Amino acid sequence: MPKRTGRYTISMENDIFIEESAGIAGSKESEGPLGEYFDISFKDDKIGQNSWEKAESSLQTIAVNTVLEKACLIPDDIDIIFAGDLLNQCISSTFGLKELNIPFMGQYGACSTMAQTLALGAIFTDSNAANRAIAVTSSHFCSAERQFRLPLEYGGQRTPSAQWTVTGAGAALISKIRSSARIAHVTIGRIKDLDIKDANNMGAAMAPAAAETIMSFLSDTNTKISDIDLILTGDLGKVGSQLLRELMQREGVDISSIHNDCGMLIFDTVKQDVHSGGSGCGCSASVFCSYIMKNIKAGKLHNILFTATGALMSPTSSQQGESIPGIAHLIHICSDR
Amino acid sequence: MPKRTGRYTISMENDIFIEESAGIAGSKESEGPLGEYFDISFKDDKIGQNSWEKAESSLQTIAVNTVLEKACLIPDDIDIIFAGDLLNQCISSTFGLKELNIPFMGQYGACSTMAQTLALGAIFTDSNAANRAIAVTSSHFCSAERQFRLPLEYGGQRTPSAQWTVTGAGAALISKIRSSARIAHVTIGRIKDLDIKDANNMGAAMAPAAAETIMSFLSDTNTKISDIDLILTGDLGKVGSQLLRELMQREGVDISSIHNDCGMLIFDTVKQDVHSGGSGCGCSASVFCSYIMKNIKAGKLHNILFTATGALMSPTSSQQGESIPGIAHLIHICSDR
Repeated sequence: MPKRTGRYTISMENDIFIEESAGIAGSKESEGPLGEYFDISFKDDKIGQNSWEKAESSLQTIAVNTVLEKACLIPDDIDIIFAGDLLNQCISSTFGLKELNIPFMGQYGACSTMAQTLALGAIFTDSNAANRAIAVTSSHFCSAERQFRLPLEYGGQRTPSAQWTVTGAGAALISKIRSSARIAHVTIGRIKDLDIKDANNMGAAMAPAAAETIMSFLSDTNTKISDIDLILTGDLGKVGSQLLRELMQREGVDISSIHNDCGMLIFDTVKQDVHSGGSGCGCSASVFCSYIMKNIKAGKLHNILFTATGALMSPTSSQQGESIPGIAHLIHICSDR
Repeated sequence: MPKRTGRYTISMENDIFIEESAGIAGSKESEGPLGEYFDISFKDDKIGQNSWEKAESSLQTIAVNTVLEKACLIPDDIDIIFAGDLLNQCISSTFGLKELNIPFMGQYGACSTMAQTLALGAIFTDSNAANRAIAVTSSHFCSAERQFRLPLEYGGQRTPSAQWTVTGAGAALISKIRSSARIAHVTIGRIKDLDIKDANNMGAAMAPAAAETIMSFLSDTNTKISDIDLILTGDLGKVGSQLLRELMQREGVDISSIHNDCGMLIFDTVKQDVHSGGSGCGCSASVFCSYIMKNIKAGKLHNILFTATGALMSPTSSQQGESIPGIAHLIHICSDR
């Protein structure tokens, strides 16, 4: 049964594991530095569908089916699926997962969704509300561009602080079946709003939330930064990552040698012309569920704070002159040596 | 600690209660049959704000603050808040709740959100992941019309099967503090898609999901329909309610004498010209958190299946010719006699 540890953190009482995971990627992502790590990559970003939205749904379908195959399970073996995405009314998740007939709870955490769904999966599994849970999320460059920014055909210029929405998905299966990735703690984030209004600088809007959640975890669990191998943020990109390090430094915590960001890992930001790096729910999902999980399995990573960050705005709120509130949820993963 | 009961239902092991609740309503709702039951009603549907979206956010702020006041608590007493709404990227929840500084997880279940958030609150509380959780959701006629249908100024005609989005919100505080409303079970719904494509007939799209979830609960828990006082659906409206009764009849279960629907309770469908009844997350939320909870407290209701239903489509998916998948989550509430 989960146990509250400090004000914001929940410890797992049982050994809860990420039994299997899968990261799926689009063409640009597969050409990046992590190309070889993805379970499946597509050269055709339409994934054989007739719309970008259906293509994104397919990414979720494929991510979940890949996880099920890897674990030799069928949908009926899964007690609950937590899923979400960036599209209005979370249609990628609905349409991508409806055929599975698994009890479903739609989540909205913007780009923090992978951590949010993992947290729920861990708590449900630890408390026996589920024997096996799946956490899944996706994003697609083309469906996101036309919904949040401009039609693709417009070919708009991007600011240097702008990020590039990843075409990808990640799914993780959570259970009590032993694997090398144990979820030890989750820290649930609060909405943090420092009145940043530039929708082309999401990293800056999300960095304060990441700093707050990481500080909460360290203080709730009395963890020293020297015990951690990797603090992996969701997709702060270059600008947001620099800000996070500065914010942590101000709190007297130097994370510069152990911090990395999924948005900077997934692309070669210079050669691939993605400005500040990758973003989107599918960014941290595909990086975490493939590259990071494979490194944990290989014994290269042992103690990780996966901190996915979300910008909780909409085009409507931005057009109405509102700020961009951020949030970050943290998953503490241990690989028992 | 929660316990799995059958394939789709989770039993609470501890006594988990809705410690307090509050239903907030707009002008048309306050003029309806349940007007006297709402905790707070507004004659000005802008709630003193300068946009419909901010007005909807205010409904959530007020709902949560009312619950906290009724329970003599402050935000710091709450371990987690589960919230969602119908607006793109769930901005009503984000902007309405960001000042509270409570750990936050955004939910998307369309009009099933009140049941989804109650289910999560109950499971978190039963498993000690939270001592106190809040479940909250809202909708607003004007923000929903312009996002999902047409600008208000257009004054479009509505079909007889169309429903009227409720301006309202509901919040519930879940804890182990004894009250007259005990959450005994939750049944998590699956996405059900019978290929209905008429966005002016959401009731028909959601009725099959409601039938499936209710049947799952009855079979998982071996409950007889004669033990239940009230099956309260979210907002199937007239058309969907009739369909649900027929679908249940086909399964050999006659619910006609104990079924009612929040969408039909909240308005006088004839006098108030709302065609098939009310809808929107705020419909079942405001009705359940005020009228129903007050009837439970008064000893008039003892054994209730609150089954909120959601239509998981978006304007984009409808424009692309997709069907409307439905979902329904069920909360079994007992008032121990």
